[in-house]
Amino acid sequence: MKPLALGLDYGTESARAVLIELESGAELATAVEPYPHGVLERALPSGRPLPPLYALHHPGDYLEVTRRLLARMGAEALRHGEVVGIGLDATASSPLPTDAEGTPLALKEAFANEPHAYLKLWKHHAAEPYAQAINRAAPPFLQMYGGKTSAEWSLAKAWEVLAEAPRVWEATARWIEVGDWLVWQLCGAEVRSACQAGYKAHWQPTGYPKPEALAALESALVGWLERLAPPHPVGQRAGGLRPGWATEGLPAGTPVAVAVIDAHAAVPGVGIGAPGAMVAILGTSSCHLALSPEARAVPGIAGVVPDGILPGFYGYECGQPATGDMLAWWVRTLAWAGGASEAALFERLNQALGARGAPSGLLALDWWNGCRTPRMDAGLKGVLSGLRLDTDPAQVYQALVEASAFGTRLVKETLERAVGPLERVVATGGLSRSPAILQIYANVLGTPIEASPAPQASARGAALYGALAAGFPLPPAPPPRVFYPDGQSGDYQALYREYLALADFFGLAFQSKEVPLS
Amino acid sequence: MKPLALGLDYGTESARAVLIELESGAELATAVEPYPHGVLERALPSGRPLPPLYALHHPGDYLEVTRRLLARMGAEALRHGEVVGIGLDATASSPLPTDAEGTPLALKEAFANEPHAYLKLWKHHAAEPYAQAINRAAPPFLQMYGGKTSAEWSLAKAWEVLAEAPRVWEATARWIEVGDWLVWQLCGAEVRSACQAGYKAHWQPTGYPKPEALAALESALVGWLERLAPPHPVGQRAGGLRPGWATEGLPAGTPVAVAVIDAHAAVPGVGIGAPGAMVAILGTSSCHLALSPEARAVPGIAGVVPDGILPGFYGYECGQPATGDMLAWWVRTLAWAGGASEAALFERLNQALGARGAPSGLLALDWWNGCRTPRMDAGLKGVLSGLRLDTDPAQVYQALVEASAFGTRLVKETLERAVGPLERVVATGGLSRSPAILQIYANVLGTPIEASPAPQASARGAALYGALAAGFPLPPAPPPRVFYPDGQSGDYQALYREYLALADFFGLAFQSKEVPLS
Repeated sequence: MKPLALGLDYGTESARAVLIELESGAELATAVEPYPHGVLERALPSGRPLPPLYALHHPGDYLEVTRRLLARMGAEALRHGEVVGIGLDATASSPLPTDAEGTPLALKEAFANEPHAYLKLWKHHAAEPYAQAINRAAPPFLQMYGGKTSAEWSLAKAWEVLAEAPRVWEATARWIEVGDWLVWQLCGAEVRSACQAGYKAHWQPTGYPKPEALAALESALVGWLERLAPPHPVGQRAGGLRPGWATEGLPAGTPVAVAVIDAHAAVPGVGIGAPGAMVAILGTSSCHLALSPEARAVPGIAGVVPDGILPGFYGYECGQPATGDMLAWWVRTLAWAGGASEAALFERLNQALGARGAPSGLLALDWWNGCRTPRMDAGLKGVLSGLRLDTDPAQVYQALVEASAFGTRLVKETLERAVGPLERVVATGGLSRSPAILQIYANVLGTPIEASPAPQASARGAALYGALAAGFPLPPAPPPRVFYPDGQSGDYQALYREYLALADFFGLAFQSKEVPLS
Repeated sequence: MKPLALGLDYGTESARAVLIELESGAELATAVEPYPHGVLERALPSGRPLPPLYALHHPGDYLEVTRRLLARMGAEALRHGEVVGIGLDATASSPLPTDAEGTPLALKEAFANEPHAYLKLWKHHAAEPYAQAINRAAPPFLQMYGGKTSAEWSLAKAWEVLAEAPRVWEATARWIEVGDWLVWQLCGAEVRSACQAGYKAHWQPTGYPKPEALAALESALVGWLERLAPPHPVGQRAGGLRPGWATEGLPAGTPVAVAVIDAHAAVPGVGIGAPGAMVAILGTSSCHLALSPEARAVPGIAGVVPDGILPGFYGYECGQPATGDMLAWWVRTLAWAGGASEAALFERLNQALGARGAPSGLLALDWWNGCRTPRMDAGLKGVLSGLRLDTDPAQVYQALVEASAFGTRLVKETLERAVGPLERVVATGGLSRSPAILQIYANVLGTPIEASPAPQASARGAALYGALAAGFPLPPAPPPRVFYPDGQSGDYQALYREYLALADFFGLAFQSKEVPLS
């Protein structure tokens, strides 16, 4: 019986499963299941309307898609070998309130019509005023986080519930990331993840934030600590699969690994297991990860967490909040008048991108959803400069791709100040499937870029945490396609200096306006 | 018989005629005739392709449309009274080469296939390298022109012909603005206009540029002077209508006035005859005009010319090179995907503009075609800042309208440094027909704006120069619709300060790149 590992990858719109053969590293089977309720942005399932900036999930959807995926993957496993371990990753911070037994409040009749009882998805942005209040106070626990927390993270979202739905907060025994909650469901033990705690709840080897620091913000916020639990290194066994989840091909007791954040799971997923490389996940937003034997606080790095990406290393995380989202904004703008479909426009613009032999002639700042690394300012805004009467839509698209590449170069330089030279850059995520986009990245970075051929690096990585939890080593990674800087790279080096001047101007002269804490 | 005046207005795509009753000021009749060949941008009528940036006219088109308009207006005049004078305005600088008798070289068989023998329309931009060479040399004759000439003006276009088609230049006896050439055709006398000479050929009371200054640029350029002729104040009689043009209702000998530039004709056209007011012609580009008893050179003012707008005053001219053109760029961008028509999109965006109750939230620099006043730099480029993932196309449109208003305010402040307080602002031109646009202008300027009700202010003005030439006073102007600053004006005052900061940054840090002189 060949040893296999099963990865479960819980994304924003759907969950995915992948089955890996551990000797060869080959992907044997995959499956996708969309969440039945999708993202709740306008109304609860009851029809109750939601305020702006909300993005909720129905916790029951996770149980439903997990059951379906395990059934399909159990059947596949039977044909190929034996599953030695199950790993899972999920979006984060996507916390939900549960009772002491782990039952989500949203699944209880008393709270079914209460928005704050639902899972707050990572991109739920209504906690922005609370994040700003925390950042203004500059508490000491932000030191390893570039001096900033985010509206997307656990503490701001907890404060939002506490302030806006005290009855929900009172009934909340556990405030838990959906990845950790799924591990709890699968193996019956509340084993939290250092990855989720470290990157999204300000946990460090010294522990979670101190009660005094929280009390200085708001006395009742100390209660957040009682609702958390101590974290465990990733790559460890959290428990065995409970009988209620077992299927033919996935027996009860199969080891289940500690949960990981989806982006971070991509690091082993693309074959990186040591320092000296940056993994760039180029999706709707971009996330940049690196490993180091040492911890070093550098402004602009969103998080540094021990054992947070792979055991034995400090994991570093940086980010750009809108990459594919910025391109999608332009496509949406062009589709506004009701012509070609967005898919057709993407196709047309990407073709034009591949056909061009020079920089766009424009210069953009990629801050359509604020700037994470290095400025940590969600209120900063995007800029397009160099516009002329003959500027065409394909040029603007190219300028946005270039801006995302300039932003990635600035991230890499920021990371290198903390972890030293990053000799390899490995790209994955949706945008990495466009050769034209990666060629621009290589030209802007002035270094080769490896495009991971793993079509779903996070799901693959999730499976590999299952393998680690069962004591198996990481299998070989499939060979990447490499993009080298070409003759345009020199022009892009000059443009990068202009990008930095633009970023200095708009990052300082036009400080973002704060959202008032009502 | 009631006294009437006939105005002829030669635009870019068509020519227009208007018949005014001089006692009441009422417009009795109008007619429009498109140029049969249109603007020649891609090829000559022979099919010979044109280089980029070309914009030519066929001189024969002017004779053709003039004949048609005189026939139609003569018939109208017969029904209403007696035409006492004919005035005409035209685009400028739109020069053409002719022989000593005024016959355009383009109409001679030897030159019919030679692009440089055709009329170079104001928006022919291929002379840009020559303009830059003149500006680099900083000759003394630029003093009253903000230190800059333009690729659109007479000298740069003459140098272009001299350098690129010496055979054409050799055959050129007269280098003449189309307005002056039309006066020559109509009344048989080559009587040039101080308006066209002063604003487009650097003529001042001291004369045209000195031969030494021209020779310092290029020795053969001295020959430009031989091909010009002394200018005459506007509002004077150039001659009487030649018998060949007379029609029933337009007898031979009817006084024909000295020609005027189309924009400048709008000043009497909207009823302004004295200092203290700024006339803003808001079209594809914008032109801002004011009168003063004194001449004062202020950087950024495109031209100061005695008797150039109305006799007895110095006429001041400023401009924004892309106003409606900038809005049209956005509409063209939105129509790129093949949805709604450009006309439908304009309609939809203007409706949204009227419905909004706040500033756009974006900040743009209106430099899509460079900046004339105050920076005199054709290489500067447009900027859009403040972009977010939820920015919609209507917001961008509003931001472009706002930017054009900020630019107009900066023009007004520049003009006021030269001519003192401008207590009235009178708007005309295509954009002035949108109440939503004028309301934003009033809020940004912080002063009332009068929208001239004259639908075609230049054509009306042209007729009034005909009246002046015949010794008649200016008739009353129709009452304007006035737009007052409203509750949003305060926000716009703060945004204007940000606009100035943006303009300083992009006007200095990102200096435009020069077009090489090949």
